[in-house]
Amino acid sequence: MIKATEDNQYVELTSPTSLPKASGFLWNEKMMIHVNCRGYAVAQFMQPEPAKYSYAPNLEAKTFMQPEQPYYAHHPGRFVYIKDEVSGEIFSAPYEPVRKHADSYTFAVGKHDIQWKVIQDDICIEMSLRLPKEDVMELWRVKVTNLSSRKRKLSIYPYYTVGYMSWMNQSGRYVEDLQGIVCSAVTPYQKYQDYSKIKNYRDKTYLLADHQPTGWEVNHETFEGEGGLHNPSALQSETLAGGDARYETPVATLQYRLELEAGAEQAYRFIFGPAHDETEIEGIRQHYFVKQNEEGQDGFTAAEQEYAGYIAEGQGNIQIETPDSWLDNVVNHWLPRQMYYHGKTNRLTTDPQTRNYLQDNMGMSYIQPQIARAAFLTALSQQHISGAMPDGIILHPDAELKYINQVPHTDHCIWLPVCMKTYLDETNDYSILEEQVAFTDSEQKISVLEHMNLAMRWLIHERDARGLNYINQGDWCDPMNMVGYKGKGVSGWLTIATAYAFNVWADIGEQAGHAEVAAEFRQEANQTNAVANEYLWDGDWYARGITDDNVVFGVSKDVEGRIYINPQSWALMSGAADQEKQEKLIRAVEEQLETPYGVEKLAPSFTAMREDVGRVTQKHPGSAENGAVYNHAAAFYIYALYLVGEKEKAYRLLRKMIPGPDAEDILQRGQLPVFIPNYYRGAYRQFPRTAGRSSHLFNTGTVPWVYRCLIDGLFGLQGHAQGLQVRPQLPEDWNEASVTRLFRGAELNVNMKKDATVRTIEVHVDGQRIAGDIIKNIQADVKYEVLVKLPL
Amino acid sequence: MIKATEDNQYVELTSPTSLPKASGFLWNEKMMIHVNCRGYAVAQFMQPEPAKYSYAPNLEAKTFMQPEQPYYAHHPGRFVYIKDEVSGEIFSAPYEPVRKHADSYTFAVGKHDIQWKVIQDDICIEMSLRLPKEDVMELWRVKVTNLSSRKRKLSIYPYYTVGYMSWMNQSGRYVEDLQGIVCSAVTPYQKYQDYSKIKNYRDKTYLLADHQPTGWEVNHETFEGEGGLHNPSALQSETLAGGDARYETPVATLQYRLELEAGAEQAYRFIFGPAHDETEIEGIRQHYFVKQNEEGQDGFTAAEQEYAGYIAEGQGNIQIETPDSWLDNVVNHWLPRQMYYHGKTNRLTTDPQTRNYLQDNMGMSYIQPQIARAAFLTALSQQHISGAMPDGIILHPDAELKYINQVPHTDHCIWLPVCMKTYLDETNDYSILEEQVAFTDSEQKISVLEHMNLAMRWLIHERDARGLNYINQGDWCDPMNMVGYKGKGVSGWLTIATAYAFNVWADIGEQAGHAEVAAEFRQEANQTNAVANEYLWDGDWYARGITDDNVVFGVSKDVEGRIYINPQSWALMSGAADQEKQEKLIRAVEEQLETPYGVEKLAPSFTAMREDVGRVTQKHPGSAENGAVYNHAAAFYIYALYLVGEKEKAYRLLRKMIPGPDAEDILQRGQLPVFIPNYYRGAYRQFPRTAGRSSHLFNTGTVPWVYRCLIDGLFGLQGHAQGLQVRPQLPEDWNEASVTRLFRGAELNVNMKKDATVRTIEVHVDGQRIAGDIIKNIQADVKYEVLVKLPL
Repeated sequence: MIKATEDNQYVELTSPTSLPKASGFLWNEKMMIHVNCRGYAVAQFMQPEPAKYSYAPNLEAKTFMQPEQPYYAHHPGRFVYIKDEVSGEIFSAPYEPVRKHADSYTFAVGKHDIQWKVIQDDICIEMSLRLPKEDVMELWRVKVTNLSSRKRKLSIYPYYTVGYMSWMNQSGRYVEDLQGIVCSAVTPYQKYQDYSKIKNYRDKTYLLADHQPTGWEVNHETFEGEGGLHNPSALQSETLAGGDARYETPVATLQYRLELEAGAEQAYRFIFGPAHDETEIEGIRQHYFVKQNEEGQDGFTAAEQEYAGYIAEGQGNIQIETPDSWLDNVVNHWLPRQMYYHGKTNRLTTDPQTRNYLQDNMGMSYIQPQIARAAFLTALSQQHISGAMPDGIILHPDAELKYINQVPHTDHCIWLPVCMKTYLDETNDYSILEEQVAFTDSEQKISVLEHMNLAMRWLIHERDARGLNYINQGDWCDPMNMVGYKGKGVSGWLTIATAYAFNVWADIGEQAGHAEVAAEFRQEANQTNAVANEYLWDGDWYARGITDDNVVFGVSKDVEGRIYINPQSWALMSGAADQEKQEKLIRAVEEQLETPYGVEKLAPSFTAMREDVGRVTQKHPGSAENGAVYNHAAAFYIYALYLVGEKEKAYRLLRKMIPGPDAEDILQRGQLPVFIPNYYRGAYRQFPRTAGRSSHLFNTGTVPWVYRCLIDGLFGLQGHAQGLQVRPQLPEDWNEASVTRLFRGAELNVNMKKDATVRTIEVHVDGQRIAGDIIKNIQADVKYEVLVKLPL
Repeated sequence: MIKATEDNQYVELTSPTSLPKASGFLWNEKMMIHVNCRGYAVAQFMQPEPAKYSYAPNLEAKTFMQPEQPYYAHHPGRFVYIKDEVSGEIFSAPYEPVRKHADSYTFAVGKHDIQWKVIQDDICIEMSLRLPKEDVMELWRVKVTNLSSRKRKLSIYPYYTVGYMSWMNQSGRYVEDLQGIVCSAVTPYQKYQDYSKIKNYRDKTYLLADHQPTGWEVNHETFEGEGGLHNPSALQSETLAGGDARYETPVATLQYRLELEAGAEQAYRFIFGPAHDETEIEGIRQHYFVKQNEEGQDGFTAAEQEYAGYIAEGQGNIQIETPDSWLDNVVNHWLPRQMYYHGKTNRLTTDPQTRNYLQDNMGMSYIQPQIARAAFLTALSQQHISGAMPDGIILHPDAELKYINQVPHTDHCIWLPVCMKTYLDETNDYSILEEQVAFTDSEQKISVLEHMNLAMRWLIHERDARGLNYINQGDWCDPMNMVGYKGKGVSGWLTIATAYAFNVWADIGEQAGHAEVAAEFRQEANQTNAVANEYLWDGDWYARGITDDNVVFGVSKDVEGRIYINPQSWALMSGAADQEKQEKLIRAVEEQLETPYGVEKLAPSFTAMREDVGRVTQKHPGSAENGAVYNHAAAFYIYALYLVGEKEKAYRLLRKMIPGPDAEDILQRGQLPVFIPNYYRGAYRQFPRTAGRSSHLFNTGTVPWVYRCLIDGLFGLQGHAQGLQVRPQLPEDWNEASVTRLFRGAELNVNMKKDATVRTIEVHVDGQRIAGDIIKNIQADVKYEVLVKLPL
């Protein structure tokens, strides 16, 4: 049903109905497209806010991406109808809208392309989608092959949905000179001030073809007729009717009548995307279909190649070979790709949440650290002189803080040292601390070091008399907007996370030679941990917080929301939990939060609103986040387990984030193992039927943390001021593993072997055993052979 | 294809495909439902802003109602699937989703109900929808009759779409105790401040049945399966699978397996609507299905009757019998019903545009004038002490000015006298002018008369040095947001409309005995008309305005937007146009704006943006308003024609507002003749294919003006301070007409006859000819027989 191809470049699915929501993602610098195995697609591009060129059949809300997005007959998509002109039979590729079961079907998700191969009645349809690197458009290839031993008369109809573009104006027509369809709309607006923006929008949707079509149809109503999308009326005629759409829902459908001898094939190429005007579309046609470069390629083919190169730049800095080949495939191919997407696009928003922006760039430290460096400076340049970090980072001059970024959260500062640590580990570039940066509300420049100190002191300032951190209307990942909106409620997690941030910052200060910073924040960390233990330890685990009305919650007396994962993970990380507490809380998590699909965010799931906690509790057990296996939070627990040496449990939970390899597990998750979604459904103990299902959301802070678990934890190949520290935590049943580690310009081929003859780790570099576990003096552009012997 | 029933209670359509968008409307005090002949439906209720309980399959934008709303397979709707248990054949009523052509089909739109009767394979399905008067719910009856001569084994499946309720949470289950399906959701919100509102929302959607079902299905994905909505997979099984929906799109589907002897029938009743919780739903079940009143009726039947009575209260104050029976049916039944809807519901908004609110209540003057009276006082209580009227009238404590009401328009004051005139004509209640009313920004109370004077003087103040009225970001009905946003541009229409308002106000002052008011504003009107003639007369018609950069537009030198209807209509009304100008502008309108579907709003339609005019010009010729036959504006032109005695042209244009009676005309309009839509598509000279198509929007200020054209114009039975003024303007080919006119509590049966023997109008009351044309001393509760003799 699902398999990775031999070269590990694709994951293939052989039925469109077994995982009906299975999808692949492609993106470039300005757009993203989420493509479903059945032919549905959601594409967004930035102008500067996310916009569409293939719309739903009604006026959709402009909102952030929905989890578990529903599909329905008229959902936007890209399809090809095929009609046998002799028998009159029709089918469609890839599967929708006709939904005829093909004799053979393959959906192949690659890193830089997505492909289908559908065979029905000895006609083979191959479709592929790629993007250019910079331009906003889809590059489609469609190939028809006659596999039968007789001549076939066919019509094929590429059918690209345009949908309900705008109530203000929408129309469509075929433009002879462009050899394509152009649909026009005006983005609705009411205030004249908005006109200066919308006048430059790419409000047209076009479909360009490299072959002149036999017919076309641009009016959705006429096309579908009374037949329905599974049997469109327009296909009854010999030739599509042409005509236009005037304030009618447009569609971009072409017809090619063709005769294919036995074994013959015919290939077509199409470009689908948004444009400002027909001049721009003509330019696209010239560049992609008409002009050729020195190698005789047209722009279409050159763009496909350039895009493959662009994606290839996003590989990570480890290539692994372990006893777990399923893990190998995911880590070598798909994880860094997902991380690269986050670092490159910032989730296609102009105001990423500050914590997301910092973590996404933490991930970029493993791929293109110069981008991460710039991002840290951008973030700090938007710090307030009070030390507070804003709720979102503005990335475009026209951007503003939207949605959840208008709700004050108190955790943003902690992510600064936590994320910068990885950048420093990877690059050893402590010069970043000396960069001079201004504020959002002052032009005065101070060093990054001082900025970071200010952020840490803001966390110290925003506390109650007990020394617990205020939560205001929220902190990270449990959307609890009513715990502290009156100004008194505090966050258990944030208090503990603050201790961890202080420790990390003290470590950085130490390594950077700022002993005073180290001393100040080490002491603050210890004090904070002590406060956490005094007020938040509940006997077997840490409480989630204390409300405005002084009610401690996330504790054993609670019937719902009794235990939350985040305070436990971070108490392992911060040092708050001593050995005894560590054991207790790990047991509590195991008993109450672990499921076959990972660690749930809280349990038992809420079934009713708890007004003194707020919004999280309105998320029903079966719903998106409440009680879900929220992978971002789960990744921290795994990270924490590695920090305290719980390597067996850590590895087991890490593997639960990746769908498969069991077919049954993949079916339950409902997604291909080409990305980690932001959550799997939880409430496993209450609602097992739906537990484990993927959100299908590609955007998640999970990925850099999984990567960090691999680098710092499982393979223990973490950067250090003095070099590369080697501290693998291989699971017991692995006897060996090898990792090619790119590090500060060098390439280290690291072979790890369990060895009954050693009692502590031994590290051999180019045949020489080194003292300790830090490989020093690593030179860029040099390859090192590293042998790591590990005790059994 | 279309006919009115003999009793004129229904308009019937006999094919679901001939007018696929044909719809009926039902409403009550808190909700409205727009029901399509094919079974699609859009329902909204107030909590306090418009909300839904049957949603689209995706997250729809919350916006005002869309014109020419598109339908698609998964559009919200109410359907019944029918399966022959022996043959396995399925069809659906009314038509969607299976789309099988029935042997017989009727869609009957009534004033207080909507009915279908579908016969297929000797099975008759009758469906009807009614509403209660106050509660938010749909009352459905479904009857199955075996018309064949053999026993039939059937399953019928009421299928009510619930759709994508919320990304935050959605679920559904069958509740045994309620004998129904309950779907739950949480309205998404992010700011804790919003919780106090959403916590009381009716976020549940329920379907209650009066018969225990054989099976049910609440999970849309499972129900539809791979079969598609035209052939749902769930219907393959003997019994629906039950189960639940957990963060999955819910659906409310029941199954009834039944055996019907030849000729036998089985009736079911269902209630579909929103509720806050299951306690409320249980209360509904008890009230509507369980408990009985003294007459032995349950609440369901009683509510149907009460609703019929409620709608009957909304009849107008004329019943006509003319040579034009098509007109009779529309005027006697459908026009006042549409007017009543506007007056009762204020278009289901909490902040109606001030001009809409005043005109809707102008219409209510003909039905329930006490409601109109209260509305005028409400509107004036929101006047600013500057005299300015706000852009919208706040009708609910939680309401705020939204959408277009945030854009400053300058015309609101003119509507005060214009609309109040009708109230005074109907009631003679000049006491309203003495009511003491405060302001929105001052608690000081002044009389309505003084408020009105303030409003008029504000119009005088908001003018440039030439005496032309500023347009700011807009005035009425041509959304021109860039003519005057810099503070200089002026409106030709508004200047002329101001003159008309002054004249009307002077008339009112005169009748009320305030000679000083009459004198002041008569003079202002004359001055304003003079200014209009100086700066706006273009030689053959009046210009629409002058931009910030002093460019006169809507004039003969313009290639697009050369002539606008509004300045012409109002120049006839205000007295600006003398005899010569009247003739010229009427000819210009005829040549450039008249079409088979009415008078276009402007011509030629714009094909490109004109930045110094603004948004209207971004509405493409084929689109909603630009170049459309905007009926509201067209109605003023007709009104103006009656004012200047152009009765032939007025009647001809009036009739173009009503689809039919030609089948071809109805097909082109695409709507049933049960309401006047806000527009018909225009650009007739450029795009004849789509010209004339109905917007299908029921909300429009057109209706009270059409009624006023009938009362003041065609039948000339207008109220006057001294009584009822009789000045009919029957078209030439009418020899007679009779009107039953309800007026100030009396009933006047007016027979109008052309009579070769009279040279001027003669009015006979109860057999006595009266002097002049005003019937005086009319007593409430008395019937009068009136004979009007008209010269040929």
